[in-house]
Amino acid sequence: MLEITSIKDGLVIDHIKSGMGIKIFNYLNLDKVDLQVALIMNVKSEKMGKKDIIKIENCMDFDYTAISLLSPHLTINEVKSCKIVKKIKPKLPEKVVNIIKCNNPRCITSTESYVPQTFKLINEDCGSYKCDYCDNITKLSDL
Amino acid sequence: MLEITSIKDGLVIDHIKSGMGIKIFNYLNLDKVDLQVALIMNVKSEKMGKKDIIKIENCMDFDYTAISLLSPHLTINEVKSCKIVKKIKPKLPEKVVNIIKCNNPRCITSTESYVPQTFKLINEDCGSYKCDYCDNITKLSDL
Repeated sequence: MLEITSIKDGLVIDHIKSGMGIKIFNYLNLDKVDLQVALIMNVKSEKMGKKDIIKIENCMDFDYTAISLLSPHLTINEVKSCKIVKKIKPKLPEKVVNIIKCNNPRCITSTESYVPQTFKLINEDCGSYKCDYCDNITKLSDL
Repeated sequence: MLEITSIKDGLVIDHIKSGMGIKIFNYLNLDKVDLQVALIMNVKSEKMGKKDIIKIENCMDFDYTAISLLSPHLTINEVKSCKIVKKIKPKLPEKVVNIIKCNNPRCITSTESYVPQTFKLINEDCGSYKCDYCDNITKLSDL
């Protein structure tokens, strides 16, 4: 099995839904940073079957909420001197603007690109959001 | 330091020029495979200062030549039962079609998209190629 030894200081984003690691990697622009970064995909996981992991050395802050949209239920571990000092399970944001798209083809946000894509969280457990314009429900797992 | 323990069976692409790991990852469509894959960027290297590494479990063959264009002088290690059984330093291809682009704005291949971008290797050490149409020299390190 592919394994990565622990990092000294930094972040370990764990329990990423398999396949979403590269999307979070791209969303955080990790290809452009000067930090040591590892993306591991399709790691065997008892809980999830398969999962992705991202490790970032010497990095402590970015918008945790936004990445939880890409993979709800992920865990962010803050590591200092090789020890996990904080475990964060980011909550899904109540309101989301211009991150997810409405999948109703007749919604005004689908046809008019100047209209902001605004959603409200309706169920945290299912990860479902309601479009502000057409009330269509979008589940994050379907994106 | 971020480290990955050795893989059991598969490939380790080492000595990738820092920053090019994600390009090789994308070129090989590793985000879409079902294999265990790791991309590690900006690893400290005595020889190179910084380098990228890609590890792919249970994978043995793909076009080694094409990826050498993205990062000349990389090394491909074939691993079986945790041992490196073969070390490959892919040679740059003599002829390249539709992979690199001519950077001469007046070249016909720059303006006419139907013309294939054809290059011949002129110097393996420098990684320099000559455009078949306008004789302009392109160095891989400048791409």
